[in-house]
Amino acid sequence: MSDPAFSLDPQLAADTVAVGELALSHLAAIDHGDYPWLVLVPRVAGAVEIADLGDDATRLMAEIVSVSRALKRVSRCDKINVGAIGNVVAQLHVHIVGRWHGDPAWPKPVWGTPIRKGEAAGFARLRHAIAAELELASIG
Amino acid sequence: MSDPAFSLDPQLAADTVAVGELALSHLAAIDHGDYPWLVLVPRVAGAVEIADLGDDATRLMAEIVSVSRALKRVSRCDKINVGAIGNVVAQLHVHIVGRWHGDPAWPKPVWGTPIRKGEAAGFARLRHAIAAELELASIG
Repeated sequence: MSDPAFSLDPQLAADTVAVGELALSHLAAIDHGDYPWLVLVPRVAGAVEIADLGDDATRLMAEIVSVSRALKRVSRCDKINVGAIGNVVAQLHVHIVGRWHGDPAWPKPVWGTPIRKGEAAGFARLRHAIAAELELASIG
Repeated sequence: MSDPAFSLDPQLAADTVAVGELALSHLAAIDHGDYPWLVLVPRVAGAVEIADLGDDATRLMAEIVSVSRALKRVSRCDKINVGAIGNVVAQLHVHIVGRWHGDPAWPKPVWGTPIRKGEAAGFARLRHAIAAELELASIG
């Protein structure tokens, strides 16, 4: 399923590395040394709010659930934070972030805090482990 | 549909005012003078992550969509922010917050910022308007 008019927002493209393609969404990761941080971007041109997806909202929820479970298994995090904010980049995207009790921002959300890049090998391991958990053809 | 073992977390009960009951979730509002702020709490005992809902995750998504649309119609906000965080209160709850370009926290998320209570009449109007939009028996 693909919307030929969809293209990934340039800011999202610059801020993330691709993990793979789900049925509805492009799955990407943000390189942050403190948190495993994934982003789902439904490939629906012009979508800004979740409500813009219509019937595809159900599919987005299924992908939020499967990505959350994969992230928990891979990272063994204590909590998953999910957010669809979009105040800076309008293109609809959903953050799925692994958190630990006592991590640097705990218990505050990580959105709006500065990004601290991690080491490249760890970030690549995360992307490949998530792709493997979700049985995606890894493109990262 | 009701889980007899469910009860609203005492902290959520203290921080919110009830708006009404949807098929899956208790709908409540947080009194903030700067933002119309709603909270959906699925009535599923023990749920912490969205993934804990199983098949009910689809129903939660339908309620996120209908509440988002109601909030946009009632508040005429520019953007909806949706978040399932739960780092402080573990009981699964989803924030649905109306935002405007140039509001006090824009473009940052509102979570983790101090709450500034608004005037009581405006808060009551919001709750009643949302209940009316969703055709709920208003309990606020």
